[in-house]
Amino acid sequence: MLTRIDHVGIACRDLTERIACYESAFGLTVVSREVNEAQGVREAMLLVADAPAGSSYVQLLEPLGPDTPVGRFIARRGEGLHHIGYGVADISAALTSLGAGGVRLIDERPRHGSMGASIAFVHPSDVGGVLTELVQAPAP
Amino acid sequence: MLTRIDHVGIACRDLTERIACYESAFGLTVVSREVNEAQGVREAMLLVADAPAGSSYVQLLEPLGPDTPVGRFIARRGEGLHHIGYGVADISAALTSLGAGGVRLIDERPRHGSMGASIAFVHPSDVGGVLTELVQAPAP
Repeated sequence: MLTRIDHVGIACRDLTERIACYESAFGLTVVSREVNEAQGVREAMLLVADAPAGSSYVQLLEPLGPDTPVGRFIARRGEGLHHIGYGVADISAALTSLGAGGVRLIDERPRHGSMGASIAFVHPSDVGGVLTELVQAPAP
Repeated sequence: MLTRIDHVGIACRDLTERIACYESAFGLTVVSREVNEAQGVREAMLLVADAPAGSSYVQLLEPLGPDTPVGRFIARRGEGLHHIGYGVADISAALTSLGAGGVRLIDERPRHGSMGASIAFVHPSDVGGVLTELVQAPAP
């Protein structure tokens, strides 16, 4: 079902400062910036590896306010690892398979994610406490 | 410097149960099991993607006791995302570059990691609260 590790989502208080940190430490480059009002985040995607089977990224997430999922996460746990995104070839088939296996889904249907992808979140409770995102990249 | 997302490290209380969970939910397969006394963990590597440039894995980690780094992590934060491992081509060069850039290192020199790799940990304080591991895969 999973084709790759698509991205690592990292919660931060200050996106500009955290981008500078990852550019400086690891030589990563920002390839996309977006504001996602629905998810309450300002975000940047930094390219880790560009591969034919699908690229992988560090996703830096700054909450748009304290009363957002990422804002509450930072208040509770501090900055750091927030979620993991796995690539899938067919997100609808993946959600059907997970649901049939009794895995609780946050998103029953795919929605719009970063960089034109279709995404859906799986509830942490059935996958070891890990907020897990499935990502179907847009058709090339 | 980074060549890929090598693995996602997930802390769990019961390795056998968590392996069954990831096999069942995502169809992943265990490719390696090890006990690492130095790190105080019993672990399993589950293959996510097998790529020419280097494979990527979910690494499930069960502490060997409460007074270990992963044991204390679970006591403090519960099960879930523990660290992220990035592939590098030359781990010694990567550590030199990070150190020269003022990034605090947990391991000044590479040590033995999973599946014969050379690994080193970067301190979370300078990389956004994320425990970060560098992984140089063994020569084929």
